[in-house]
This record gives sequence, structure tokens and C-alpha cells, in this order.
Amino acid sequence: MTSNGTNGSAPAAHRFDPNFTQHVLDTMGPNVTPRHREVFGALIRHIHDFSREVELTIDEWMAGVQFVNAVGQIYSKTRNEAHRISDILGLESLVDEIAHTIVKDGQVDPTSSSILGPFWSPNAPFREPGSSIVQDGVPPNGRVAKMHGVIRNMMTGEPIPGAVFDFWQASSNGKYDFQDPDNQSPNNLRGKFRADENGVYTLYCLHPTAYSLPTDGPSFQLLTLLDRHPMRPAHIHIMVTHPDYMGCTTQLYPKDDPWLETDTVFAVKDDLIVDFQPLEGDDKATLELVYNVTLAPREYQGRK
Amino acid sequence: MTSNGTNGSAPAAHRFDPNFTQHVLDTMGPNVTPRHREVFGALIRHIHDFSREVELTIDEWMAGVQFVNAVGQIYSKTRNEAHRISDILGLESLVDEIAHTIVKDGQVDPTSSSILGPFWSPNAPFREPGSSIVQDGVPPNGRVAKMHGVIRNMMTGEPIPGAVFDFWQASSNGKYDFQDPDNQSPNNLRGKFRADENGVYTLYCLHPTAYSLPTDGPSFQLLTLLDRHPMRPAHIHIMVTHPDYMGCTTQLYPKDDPWLETDTVFAVKDDLIVDFQPLEGDDKATLELVYNVTLAPREYQGRK
Repeated sequence: MTSNGTNGSAPAAHRFDPNFTQHVLDTMGPNVTPRHREVFGALIRHIHDFSREVELTIDEWMAGVQFVNAVGQIYSKTRNEAHRISDILGLESLVDEIAHTIVKDGQVDPTSSSILGPFWSPNAPFREPGSSIVQDGVPPNGRVAKMHGVIRNMMTGEPIPGAVFDFWQASSNGKYDFQDPDNQSPNNLRGKFRADENGVYTLYCLHPTAYSLPTDGPSFQLLTLLDRHPMRPAHIHIMVTHPDYMGCTTQLYPKDDPWLETDTVFAVKDDLIVDFQPLEGDDKATLELVYNVTLAPREYQGRK
Repeated sequence: MTSNGTNGSAPAAHRFDPNFTQHVLDTMGPNVTPRHREVFGALIRHIHDFSREVELTIDEWMAGVQFVNAVGQIYSKTRNEAHRISDILGLESLVDEIAHTIVKDGQVDPTSSSILGPFWSPNAPFREPGSSIVQDGVPPNGRVAKMHGVIRNMMTGEPIPGAVFDFWQASSNGKYDFQDPDNQSPNNLRGKFRADENGVYTLYCLHPTAYSLPTDGPSFQLLTLLDRHPMRPAHIHIMVTHPDYMGCTTQLYPKDDPWLETDTVFAVKDDLIVDFQPLEGDDKATLELVYNVTLAPREYQGRK
């Protein structure tokens, strides 16, 4: 956080009107909140600096205008294109990092956060401990895994009974329930599980499958211009919460996925890479995943 | 234009992953065009620097995502909201300046350019020299002006016969023809006029009226957050072209308009402020505006 309007760095030298940006900023009235003044001030400065730096042409600006209009036009209840564009540009991952930066103090760290993504649902039901989120039957190529672990206090190592483990994932066709109404019923591959008195959660899920972002629309146009692939590594989403702790929203990735290094939304972190193991003696699953979660107490002050 | 990826300035110090932005940039593939690499590279760096600088929160990021979706959703054939947002942020005026910067050489300068805005039409008809663009009759509070002038070569001062003078303006209710189908027929208050052998154009138009940008939708929400008014000063639009000259798209503003200093799209320049005078002895008009236009020859090399 900076304390002055220039953010500590001199504006880049350029051959354009040196007063223009300040004039735009000065039209903000006296009733702007301090935070809005800070955020919009910085936004306007960066947009102007970007444009001068690359000497943005009128055609490029107009292409950008049309792009923004197109992003909103393709919006639907099941397609949040602006969210996806911000992911492709790394913005959601960066904002997630900013929100969750905890000053390291040499002790154990909490489980890393990662992006929420556009597919979390507030409506996922609570399910019985040890039950399966695979509600619609195992899909072709699907492999069932038993997943379990302990949710612990970062400072004391004590388990956190009653913590809520909210889990969601795409099916083996790469689609989430509400993207795939022909094949999946609502809340298929979603569910909330409450940790027991030992902080343990247990559920059955699918081994996740890598998938492509949609290959139509503005986000794919952008990826094409950037000569980038549209693939997300296989992943499962979890959101772990308890009233006394800072919640953790994150994603877990099988270690052998080929897209880990180049995840198109930049959401992979080292401690989120997991190792599914063969499982024997369980007639409901052929794989096992053990994953323990560490939460920081809400009163922890290392966080900004 | 800079010649390296860092644009000559060191990244701002911050407490976040120092490698993140470079990682995002490095996912661009080998087939990106040099210009796309430059523009998107700078765009991503500025978006990231902005976010770190203000420590953008998850709620603020999500508000931005929803805002971009809303901008596109309100788009229609007669409402280009992304264009308007870019105008409010000063971006179209800045891009216009970048496109038209001509290194001063101590001689006369060409007529300043200003923004095109969202209301130019490619379909405006040619009209007879000296005719009126007020096709639907003079509206209430309307005042008719006779406008004329000479279109000249910046280097020689010679007139430019055959130059095309394309003119459009809002009616006295602040609306352009295609915003106002109940009151205006297509091409009302629009027309193209060809300069005569002396480079002279003559037409009848309305004294322009200040108007407000729409007070619904995302652009007005943004203005409200910035505690800014939505007013544009009264103006007329002109686009003057000839095959041998660099065209000039600009706007002209009556000198007594109260919004000149705080035009909400930042499109006013000193040499575009004009003085309507009383006119006697013309039964078609009560005002006169003389405005001469100066164009730079296409081969002029002072321009970048």
C-alpha cells in the first residue's frame, strides 16, 4: 500500500501531454471514498501508462472495446466470461495471493489457497461422512478414489472438529454439473462434509480429469492470440471452513498431470500437488488420496 | 516505443511472488506476433502492477468481473457501453492524441483531432453545398447557424478543392438520430459536403446543445463512484478527408459552454473552441460560425 498518488515511482518519460492523466484524475469529486480514489486512480494511471508505453493505435483500442463488449454478451448463468478472462491473465491467482499472503514466521504454514474459479455452488448439500459425491454413477473412464485426511490448527497441530470440507469437481468429460445438464443431475460431484471429533473427513470422489476451457468465445480468442493452450490440469476443488479459523479455498492436482507447469489460469502451487495411490480391499474405490489441511486461527496476526 | 520487455523501469517493490508475472508472460507461445507480444505483455504487467499496488481485494476483483460482464450485456446497436467506459477513463482521447501527435516544427499545425465518439455513421449522405442538415425541421429551442470555412494545406496554405466535410451533431434534446427514432429520421443532422474549387464548404446546422451521457447502466455507475458529472459540453462533430491529406476527425465547442473544463470524456482542446456570432440578413439562420480547417499532407514526415 502506498501513501501518495505517484506510488513511489516516477512516471515514464513520453512525448505526450504531461498533464492529461492528472487532469482525468482531478475530475474525481470530493465525495469519492478514499479507497475508490486509490483504486480508480491507480487503474486510470496504469491504463494511460500502458497506452502510452505501447503507443496503442486507434484500431487496437477499438478491438479492445469490441472485445469487452463481446465478453459481456456471451455471459450467461453458466458462463462467466469476464471471470475466465481475468483467470487467463493471471489476475484471479494474483488477487488470491494478495488476499492470502501470510508473513512466514518459521513455523508451519497454512494450506495454500488457490482460485475459487467459476464453478463453486453455494447450494451443495451436506452429505454423510464417508459417503460418495459420485451421485450419477461412475462415468466412462471414471476412477473412484477414497479421500480422507485431518483438518488441523496451524499453530497447535490440534484437530478441528466440525470443520466443513466443501468439495466439487468436474466429471470425467471435463464438465461440472450445471454445464452438463444432459448427463449430470444438480449437485452431482459436489458435497459438504463435516469433520468428526478427530478433525477427520472422509468421502468418495473421482480421480480428476484435465479439461479444456471452452474453445469458442472471447477467452479462446485471447488464448489464440497469445499462442497458449486452453488446458487446466486435472484438479479437485475444496473449501475448508470453521468459524474460528481463516477459511481455505484451494485446488489439488495429481502429480503426474502434464499441464501442471502451464495451467492456463496459473493456479498450481507446490503444496497443492498430490499423489493418488492404488487402494486394495475397498469395493467402492481403486484409489486413495490422503490430504491433510492446515488452517490458521482467525486471530493469527501474521496475516496483513 | 521501448525496445525491451521491462520498458526501462524497474518493477515496483512488493511482497508478493516476484516471479509470477514473468511466468504468465512466459506462457505466450512462439507464434505470437511481435506486436501482440508487446501489447499483451505490457497489458498483463500493468494489470498485475495495478493489483499489487492497491492490494486489490477479492471482493473488488469480483466487482470488476461483474462490471465487465454488465458492460457487454447492455451493448446494443445504438449503445456501445465499452466505448463509453473507455471515454470516461480518458482512453479514447489519449489514443487519439497518440495517433495524431505531430512533432511541432515551428510552422502552422494541422487542426487538432478529437475523439470520434460512438455516433458517427458511415451512411451519412452527400448534400448540396450550402444546404441544411436540419432535415426534420428546427426543434424546440433550436437555433440555426450558417457554418462555413476554408479547408487548407498546412504546409502551403493553399485551399483543398474536393475535400469532404462530414458533419454530425445531436439534436437540441441531446440525442443523435439513431438514439431518437420517435423524433428524428435517419441521417437527420448528418451530412457530407464537398469543398468547392476554393476549398470552401458551407452548410446550415444547429447551434449544439450540451447533453448528459445515459444515466443508467455501468458507465453512469462508474461516474457516480468517481463523483463525476455525466455532461458533455455542447459540440459538433466533423471529419474532414481528402485522398492526398491526413484526415482530421474532431469536435468543435462553443466558447461559452459551462462544461468545457470538465468534459466527461476529455475531448476539448483549445483550438477547437469556437465563437458563434449573430447573423443578420439570412432568413435561414440567426447565427454564423466560421471555421477553417488545416490538413497535413499525407507525405508530411513530422508525424511519427
